[in-house]
Amino acid sequence: MSCDFLGLALPGVQELSPYVPGKPVEELAREFGLDPAEIIKLASNENPLGPAPMALKAIQEALPELTRYPDGNGFALKQAVSRRFGFDLSMITLGNGSNDVLELLARAFLAPGSEVVFSQHAFAVYPIVTQAVGATAVQVPAREWGHDLEAMAAAITPATRLVFIANPNNPTGTWIERAEFEAFMAQVPEQVLVVLDEAYTEYVTADDALNGFDFIDRCPNLIVTRTFSKAYGLASLRVGYAISHPQVADVLNRVRQPFNVNSLALAAAAASLEDTAYLAESRRANREGMLQLEQGFRELGLGWISSRGNFIAVDLGREAAPVYQGLLREGVIVRPVAGYGMPNHLRVSIGLPQENKRFLDALARVLNGE
Amino acid sequence: MSCDFLGLALPGVQELSPYVPGKPVEELAREFGLDPAEIIKLASNENPLGPAPMALKAIQEALPELTRYPDGNGFALKQAVSRRFGFDLSMITLGNGSNDVLELLARAFLAPGSEVVFSQHAFAVYPIVTQAVGATAVQVPAREWGHDLEAMAAAITPATRLVFIANPNNPTGTWIERAEFEAFMAQVPEQVLVVLDEAYTEYVTADDALNGFDFIDRCPNLIVTRTFSKAYGLASLRVGYAISHPQVADVLNRVRQPFNVNSLALAAAAASLEDTAYLAESRRANREGMLQLEQGFRELGLGWISSRGNFIAVDLGREAAPVYQGLLREGVIVRPVAGYGMPNHLRVSIGLPQENKRFLDALARVLNGE
Repeated sequence: MSCDFLGLALPGVQELSPYVPGKPVEELAREFGLDPAEIIKLASNENPLGPAPMALKAIQEALPELTRYPDGNGFALKQAVSRRFGFDLSMITLGNGSNDVLELLARAFLAPGSEVVFSQHAFAVYPIVTQAVGATAVQVPAREWGHDLEAMAAAITPATRLVFIANPNNPTGTWIERAEFEAFMAQVPEQVLVVLDEAYTEYVTADDALNGFDFIDRCPNLIVTRTFSKAYGLASLRVGYAISHPQVADVLNRVRQPFNVNSLALAAAAASLEDTAYLAESRRANREGMLQLEQGFRELGLGWISSRGNFIAVDLGREAAPVYQGLLREGVIVRPVAGYGMPNHLRVSIGLPQENKRFLDALARVLNGE
Repeated sequence: MSCDFLGLALPGVQELSPYVPGKPVEELAREFGLDPAEIIKLASNENPLGPAPMALKAIQEALPELTRYPDGNGFALKQAVSRRFGFDLSMITLGNGSNDVLELLARAFLAPGSEVVFSQHAFAVYPIVTQAVGATAVQVPAREWGHDLEAMAAAITPATRLVFIANPNNPTGTWIERAEFEAFMAQVPEQVLVVLDEAYTEYVTADDALNGFDFIDRCPNLIVTRTFSKAYGLASLRVGYAISHPQVADVLNRVRQPFNVNSLALAAAAASLEDTAYLAESRRANREGMLQLEQGFRELGLGWISSRGNFIAVDLGREAAPVYQGLLREGVIVRPVAGYGMPNHLRVSIGLPQENKRFLDALARVLNGE
């Protein structure tokens, strides 16, 4: 037939390059004829510990109601978030992963002509949600791989509607100091919404680290997003949330799909907030694995970007793509980040000790051309 | 603080009235001090049989991978759909419920100035997704509670981008004849996309019923959406899909979130396609329950709209809102449909025999003013 359906789509949509996720284990197994059980995946910043016991228990308890729609208001999970962090239910927006919340912000507040400020090397979803609604991305050059908040403040114009900031940032692992953020917020006009994406914040152990929740009451134009996909170990289920001024939450809740978060995610996320032992073990294992990888890189004579996330970007000092391919042949999946303007780096998620070792050994072999 | 955040939202978003779901059991229990175990909910067209055994088994098998992201391409579920219905993988778009697919269509193809044609008394999500993107809703008066396809074809203008058709329609249960649809499609210009929403199609038992899948090859501008929330019993997990021309699917897949469908939904939906015993029992139980309710209405001297769905709209011959309230006090939740322009009707989902009886007995008491 003759009709050009792509041509019927909105201009921003026509030019969208979809997000490229980490290669699934099954896909690599199919492509290279490998045994899936022998493949390790350190490519999607997933929690390597396996499911949280309390989350599993909550899922089992929810299964008899599988044929029922979720509670569209997510009352029980909002209550759990409220109990844990002290925010009123009216300040909470639940999402199908925090990706959903980031997209809701774009769809609620952006139109063609709107400008969106974010950093070079920042999370790929910011430019994607910006372009999907036909708004204009303003990418600010990074400073030492991290956000240059002064330059970002200077990039704000009367057309700016949103600023996306990731702390820690993915894929660099860089972070923002508290004082730096405070100075930034003081410069941002109140009608510009600042989205602080704290997907990895649970892995941050520094006492004086920036915590967006401390700024919510003072900064009505601040939206803090968090996820259950990382330290809480629920990536498969898709659940995240935003804390914001109630009026912003009201807008986001108008735009979201009525049942955007599934029932098992609602139940598991609420339970995982209580599973303090799992969270503590996730943090401990991550610190140890980070030290293990740093030590391994040191021994291989490689540099890296200091990271506060559950991943680390290693600098190979040469084009990373062939090394990525070599690792795939070894059954090790990591993440190429050339698409983030980092052609010499690979992003590696912190795995279990034996996974980290297997990756380091494979990396040594690939770098030695074996 | 002084800032008007609602005023910063897009005009369409500011005027959005969110979808009103069926009242959750827990909410009614809280409000009326009732025991949740004593409440029956016939308000959300859910499958009353409880979970499909094969879906439950697939969920159990997927739980060890809870910390891993879903396969963003949904390869295994697309394969299962392809095996079952014979469409190429490139023609399938998976959604977080079919609601997600309906919204993707709006976000990909509509802008302010676009017109969207749908019927009076049609599914509430059509006007919501239209307004959220600032497009113009063109609502065509119904004919005997159902779609007037001739009038809908006549309502198409050069500005029309999408037509939404529900078959069977929710909340009326009305349906479209095959010949009628064929004549309609012949009149629609190819650059106007026609969305045939078949969320309830598995309940249709007539041999000569319209099946959108039969028209996909002939009509490149046709998109058929289906869901696992109804006859397949997976409302809690959120999964649906569209079958369309590959170019339309390509556009939708650009716009969707990278991990829009969760892992347990992917696994359970693929398994449920194989669970033919569960599907057959869902259909059988629905037919029996429908006859039970019709007989009950007859005995009460009430009219109803003939339905091919898993629900029926009963005509109380008077304002339905007080009857709805009376039923709530009896611990029976049904769905008021005044918002659909049907102030004298209540929509009742087909339940188990004892639930249907309990509803009919409660309805008799409420109508008698007891």
